[in-house]
Amino acid sequence: MEKWRRSERMVLMTKILLENPQQMFTLGYFADFFQAAKSSISEDLAIIKDTLQKTGQGQLETVAGAAGGVRFLPYHSPEKEMSFLESLAEKLSSPERILPGGFLYMTDIIYDPTIISKIGAIFAHRFQGKDPDYIVTVQTKGIPLALMVANAFNVPLVIIRDDSKVTEGSAVSISYVSGSSKKISTMSLARRALKQESKVILIDDFMKAGGTAKGMMDLMKEFRAEVLGLGVLVYTKEPERKLVNNYLGLLELISIDENKREVKIKAKNFFI
Amino acid sequence: MEKWRRSERMVLMTKILLENPQQMFTLGYFADFFQAAKSSISEDLAIIKDTLQKTGQGQLETVAGAAGGVRFLPYHSPEKEMSFLESLAEKLSSPERILPGGFLYMTDIIYDPTIISKIGAIFAHRFQGKDPDYIVTVQTKGIPLALMVANAFNVPLVIIRDDSKVTEGSAVSISYVSGSSKKISTMSLARRALKQESKVILIDDFMKAGGTAKGMMDLMKEFRAEVLGLGVLVYTKEPERKLVNNYLGLLELISIDENKREVKIKAKNFFI
Repeated sequence: MEKWRRSERMVLMTKILLENPQQMFTLGYFADFFQAAKSSISEDLAIIKDTLQKTGQGQLETVAGAAGGVRFLPYHSPEKEMSFLESLAEKLSSPERILPGGFLYMTDIIYDPTIISKIGAIFAHRFQGKDPDYIVTVQTKGIPLALMVANAFNVPLVIIRDDSKVTEGSAVSISYVSGSSKKISTMSLARRALKQESKVILIDDFMKAGGTAKGMMDLMKEFRAEVLGLGVLVYTKEPERKLVNNYLGLLELISIDENKREVKIKAKNFFI
Repeated sequence: MEKWRRSERMVLMTKILLENPQQMFTLGYFADFFQAAKSSISEDLAIIKDTLQKTGQGQLETVAGAAGGVRFLPYHSPEKEMSFLESLAEKLSSPERILPGGFLYMTDIIYDPTIISKIGAIFAHRFQGKDPDYIVTVQTKGIPLALMVANAFNVPLVIIRDDSKVTEGSAVSISYVSGSSKKISTMSLARRALKQESKVILIDDFMKAGGTAKGMMDLMKEFRAEVLGLGVLVYTKEPERKLVNNYLGLLELISIDENKREVKIKAKNFFI
C-alpha cells in the first residue's frame, strides 16, 4: 500500500477540492484514497481550510453528520470581490468602449476566461444557499459568463436559442418583446434540454429594459421550472422600472454620453 | 513577517498554479510571496511536480534560465485521456441520442462544465507547443467547449457570429457554403474583436463536410490571422474528403442508423 506524505496529500486534496466546487467529499473518501487515518485527513483539511481563509481565497465548508464532509466553495472575501468589480467598472468606463448608438463594447471582457471565472464565482457567492439544477442563458454573448457560473455551481448549462433553429427534436418557442427596441423576437428551447420542474438560475451579460429576461422567465414557465434567481453582469440605470422585478446586477451602467465621450458605471456592493 | 508552514505553502502554491495554467511563475515570485528561501520553494515545487506526475493529473513544467520558472500544464496522462474519450464515445453511442434526420443529440454533454473542462485540457495537450493568442469559434453550440479550451490555454476566446447582427462597430462578413446542406450562410466578426496578424486555434463541436470550418478559415484570412490548428470534438467519417485539410478530431462518428437505432462512434488516439 502506497503511503503518502502530508505535503503530497495537501497537493492532491487541494486539487480535487478545487476542481469540484460545491461537491461534498466525506472524510472516508479521502481516508480510502490516501490509505490514511481519518484523524490525519481531518488535520489535513483543517490546514487547507485555515490557509484558504487566511488568504480570502475561497472557503472550505465542513458539514457534520452522516451525509457530511467537506466541500470547496469558490468564494473570495467580499473585499476582494468588490475591488475586483471596481477594477472591472474602471476598465469598462474607458471612452474607447463607446460604440455607435450608445452601446458599450464589453466583448473582450466577457469572453476572457480569467475574468469571467472570477465573475462566475461572485455570482455563486451572491446566490449562496440556492441549489440550482441548471444555469440557463440565452445566446450569444452571455454564454461564456453563464458557463463559468455553471462551473462555480458545478451544474450543467442550458442555452436558449434566440431563433427557432433548434435541431434537437421537439422544442418550445415563445415570442417576446425586446423591452428597448420593442421588436418581437423568438426564443426556443428543446424539450429534452431541460427536465420539467427543474430549479434554475438565469444569467445574462446585459440588461436594459428586461425584455429578454422576461422572455426567459416566460419560457421557464413552459418547462414548469422554478427560477431561483436572475443574475446580470451589467444593467442600465434607465429605465428604472424593468420588465422583471427581482434581479441581481453586479455593475450599474449609469450613463453613456456619446458627445462628451463619457461612460459612468459603478460596482454594486451586496455585502454591506 | 508571517511565516508559512510547508503544508500551507503546498495548498496555496497548488491553487495558484492550477488556477493559472500555462502561466510561468519564477522561484522568486513564490519566495517573495511566502517570505521563504528559494531552496525551500524549490523543494516544494519538486513535491508538487512528483505528486501530479505520480497520479497522471497534470504536469508541472520547469523552465531553466533567466526567464525560467514553473508552470502548470493541465494535461492528464495519455491513458487517462483515452479512457475518458472512450467513456464519452460510449455515452454518445446511446440510441436515445438519435434525432430525426440522423443527427446526434450531444447538447447535454457539450454544455456540461465538468466534461468540457476535461476536453479543453485534452485539446490543449494535443496542441501542445502551439502558442495561440486567441481561441476562435462560431456560435452557438461550440462556445462552451471553445471557452474551456481558451481556459486551458489561458487566452481569450473570440466568437464569430453566424449572422450579421454584429453591434460592435465595423465588422467583416463572409459568405460560406455549408458543405452538407449546400446552403449559403453568413458569418461575421467585429474588426476590434481580433487584432490583425494574431495566432489562433479554431475550435468547433462538430464537423461533417467542413463548410463552417472552411468559412472560419476564410474569415481568419481577412484578419491576416495565422491558424495554428483546427480542433473538433466530433467529426463524421463520411464524407472522407472534408473542405479543410488539416484538423484534429477527438471522436469519429462512423455511422448513425435511424432504422436499426444504432450509433457507431470511436475515440481517436493521437499518442501512439
